[in-house]
Amino acid sequence: MATQSEALTGEMFIGAARVRGAAGTFRGHDPARGAWLEPAYGGGTPADVERACQLAWAAFDAFRDTDLETRARLLETAAQRILDLGDALIERACAESGLPRGRIEGERGRTVGQLRLFAEVVRGGEWLEARIDPALPQRQPAPRSDLRQRHIAVGPVAVFGASNFPLAFSVAGGDTASALAAGCPVVVKAHNAHPGTSELVGRALRQAVADCGLPEGVFSLLFASGNEVGTALVADPRIKSVGFTGSRRGGTALMKVAAARAEPIPVFAEMSSINPVYLLPAALTARGADIGRKFVASLTLGAGQFCTNPGLVLAVESPGLDTFIEAAAAVLRDSPCATMLTPGIHAAYDEGVGRLTAHSRVKSVARGVATNGPNQSRAALFTTDAGSFLGDPALQEEVFGSSSLVVRCESVEAVRAVTEHLEGQLTATLQMDEADIPLARQLLPVLERKAGRILVNGFPTGVEVCHAMVHGGPFPATSDPRATSVGSLAIRRFLRPVCYQDLPQELLPQSLRDGNPLELWRRVDGKLVPPSEPRR
Amino acid sequence: MATQSEALTGEMFIGAARVRGAAGTFRGHDPARGAWLEPAYGGGTPADVERACQLAWAAFDAFRDTDLETRARLLETAAQRILDLGDALIERACAESGLPRGRIEGERGRTVGQLRLFAEVVRGGEWLEARIDPALPQRQPAPRSDLRQRHIAVGPVAVFGASNFPLAFSVAGGDTASALAAGCPVVVKAHNAHPGTSELVGRALRQAVADCGLPEGVFSLLFASGNEVGTALVADPRIKSVGFTGSRRGGTALMKVAAARAEPIPVFAEMSSINPVYLLPAALTARGADIGRKFVASLTLGAGQFCTNPGLVLAVESPGLDTFIEAAAAVLRDSPCATMLTPGIHAAYDEGVGRLTAHSRVKSVARGVATNGPNQSRAALFTTDAGSFLGDPALQEEVFGSSSLVVRCESVEAVRAVTEHLEGQLTATLQMDEADIPLARQLLPVLERKAGRILVNGFPTGVEVCHAMVHGGPFPATSDPRATSVGSLAIRRFLRPVCYQDLPQELLPQSLRDGNPLELWRRVDGKLVPPSEPRR
Repeated sequence: MATQSEALTGEMFIGAARVRGAAGTFRGHDPARGAWLEPAYGGGTPADVERACQLAWAAFDAFRDTDLETRARLLETAAQRILDLGDALIERACAESGLPRGRIEGERGRTVGQLRLFAEVVRGGEWLEARIDPALPQRQPAPRSDLRQRHIAVGPVAVFGASNFPLAFSVAGGDTASALAAGCPVVVKAHNAHPGTSELVGRALRQAVADCGLPEGVFSLLFASGNEVGTALVADPRIKSVGFTGSRRGGTALMKVAAARAEPIPVFAEMSSINPVYLLPAALTARGADIGRKFVASLTLGAGQFCTNPGLVLAVESPGLDTFIEAAAAVLRDSPCATMLTPGIHAAYDEGVGRLTAHSRVKSVARGVATNGPNQSRAALFTTDAGSFLGDPALQEEVFGSSSLVVRCESVEAVRAVTEHLEGQLTATLQMDEADIPLARQLLPVLERKAGRILVNGFPTGVEVCHAMVHGGPFPATSDPRATSVGSLAIRRFLRPVCYQDLPQELLPQSLRDGNPLELWRRVDGKLVPPSEPRR
Repeated sequence: MATQSEALTGEMFIGAARVRGAAGTFRGHDPARGAWLEPAYGGGTPADVERACQLAWAAFDAFRDTDLETRARLLETAAQRILDLGDALIERACAESGLPRGRIEGERGRTVGQLRLFAEVVRGGEWLEARIDPALPQRQPAPRSDLRQRHIAVGPVAVFGASNFPLAFSVAGGDTASALAAGCPVVVKAHNAHPGTSELVGRALRQAVADCGLPEGVFSLLFASGNEVGTALVADPRIKSVGFTGSRRGGTALMKVAAARAEPIPVFAEMSSINPVYLLPAALTARGADIGRKFVASLTLGAGQFCTNPGLVLAVESPGLDTFIEAAAAVLRDSPCATMLTPGIHAAYDEGVGRLTAHSRVKSVARGVATNGPNQSRAALFTTDAGSFLGDPALQEEVFGSSSLVVRCESVEAVRAVTEHLEGQLTATLQMDEADIPLARQLLPVLERKAGRILVNGFPTGVEVCHAMVHGGPFPATSDPRATSVGSLAIRRFLRPVCYQDLPQELLPQSLRDGNPLELWRRVDGKLVPPSEPRR
């Protein structure tokens, strides 16, 4: 493949055109070496945003009208084109993120798998949610019209790449895959932490669009030297939805821009979560030390740079809790430093850990091994008590990285009170044994209100891409708890229903025609009818 | 039933308690007679909002956990209790709305039917969208956990009664029915145009909650003498979603309050639509006069006080169009006055019609019969040309009532240009014959982008409550085109997904347990499995 050997150019993709951004320059950065990477990237201008949105809009009607097979092939071709980038992609992503090769290779697998899963989803056509309520011409007192419903794409989607997943939540990540699957053109704003990775993946996507003979506006990739491009993108009237993974500050800023538009649009922002882990008494007694060790493995994975990192532990005071803390502290003290994604993230982590260290109601239990390299994270474990936690909202602010706070609770009631006091979360985890079931049953209704995913005897890091996954949750975990950004349900964010009343067959979309030509599951008079039973 | 004979008290229902609002008083009003109605209603205070939200929150976990049968019975009991109100309800609703008895009886039927439809929806359990991705312990490179997903209620919902549907979109209307079906307690802010109707229906709902042994906070009804109650309700942290039908000004004001909360929440506001009707050439030639007469029947139905009232007509200049206009004008000139809902709505209608009448680029074609009674609407028909329409955004502002503007277009291109220029709509209608199919096919993609429902050879008034209905559309038709406020899909507004990872059977909700005890359709590994095939 030609792509592999081509050098990076530092240019954006505005549809099929390579465009050098004229608004300032920036470079990728190797956090492990503390070194800047070539080439220089030019930041986009409002005119570039305008052009990308114009192309996306021009492509929209044609793209959303492509048949399911074409759309699925686009996603599969994108997956293959990403693989075709070969080692150049892996090396650049490792260099720009400081993440180890195994992790980046795994993330590539996940990204490719995600695109292929959505290809399958597109082909299945269930996302169309075809519904048919046949006419009832004899009904009294008034006849019923023939009413049919399907879902269509909402319009061009703006996607913001995430710092912590240079592949799986960036240019061709979950937001892009689900938006394209829905039939929405995508304009990506690359994350500045990995412009080279973004350019490579953008190249793969751009080629996939061309390979499939689709309009160039289906995909554009913008770089930005400041906030102007992102703000202009969300404000552009042709953009109809936004996918974002990042900080609470960034996400809420975009929510404000979107709400202030003449036509407000939804923002699906995945922002901030401390992912409470509950250590229930019987489990603590039986295996406190083992849980402690596994907990630290989850906490320090990928330098703790996961949205689902376990930043909070809740348990009732007990000897088992002491055992847990001792075991966790012992492992943590031996855990090596890890390179963080960017100097900014590293500085924010050190500041967050420093704030906890200096906090009068917080006790520092252990730190990981110190080192002198650049952007190195030292894991950190702290304890406090329920009263202190309840008294200071700052204690539930996310410290992005491998820092966690154990809240020692005097009673089950205190655990409950702390839980009710929590903001919305992506996950909540119960470490429990058989004897803990009654207590777990008490906690579950509260956890359901607080989190999008509830785990038993696992750890929240590691988000399976499947049909039942929910990577979402009440604010500030996300901007809209009714959505997930991982798993096949993610497509729903970018769809809206349309009803067709008494349309002649030749004007109806294929999915709603008599005889069920697409062989879809459809709801007829409210009852699901399989493809094999074409009731009309 | 005791309810029928009980006099109105002017009190709110805050859970089980009858509470007299202390913030000012207001009365119902008979617009046909121009007379105030007894009793006086006391407006709620922020403390009343606080108490209603507190009760709703306290009821939430228990209510959302009720079994499907109990929830369905609540809805059916509410329907029966509304019927039990008997003639007292019909008389009061007629008096407060100026709407004829037949319409109000029909609306009661629709309201009751809607509650019963949602009872069926609840029992069916498809809204749970149960998904199961079984564990794959042998998978390489890493095993997969057992992952299961269902949908749960988002939390207490604030519902704002609409002026134009004193029953079907008010205290026990579509928003309330779908929110209760989802398992959300509801706090209704009654519309001031029909407090007596609201009190009666509130009584029925209150009794249904008690009949079913549910916590009192499942339903509260507030009155308000100003905007303070509504604002406080949407701002209350225990309210998690909002249903609203009304003006664009009112809806966008609530959207701003919701977006400014510490935890922003969605507002499902159905606001403003002019529902374009396209008269295609062959249909105009074949039956221009007939379409004109039917159009006026739709335009003047219920004094034009429908969200789906056809306020805009688009056609290419032709003799057929002249025939349409002449026939419509003739019928309209003879159409009797009709009482409007409130003096405010009547004044706004007269002002809107006056604005069009005085507009230099608009020609007044016909007015309905004049009369001297209070709050009487005279239908109005205007014409303009495409250039003028494109040049003045004010010409696409909704005039709530039976006023419509025909845009004479010089060409199909002008029709397309006007269409692209339109804001979001609830509906778009094509009047067409066989020979118009190619043109209709050209227009459809644009109409799909602009409207939630597309009709052929019908008129948009009359919104069927069924599974395939979409009563929604892009802003400003609604605040979120991904939702409908009519039909069974309306329940989705108030649900969010939750994922359960590796939970033991006894902690899983019934809907997700092995053996499928609720006999639901479930998606196993992404494939729909009927209740009869319990794959696990």
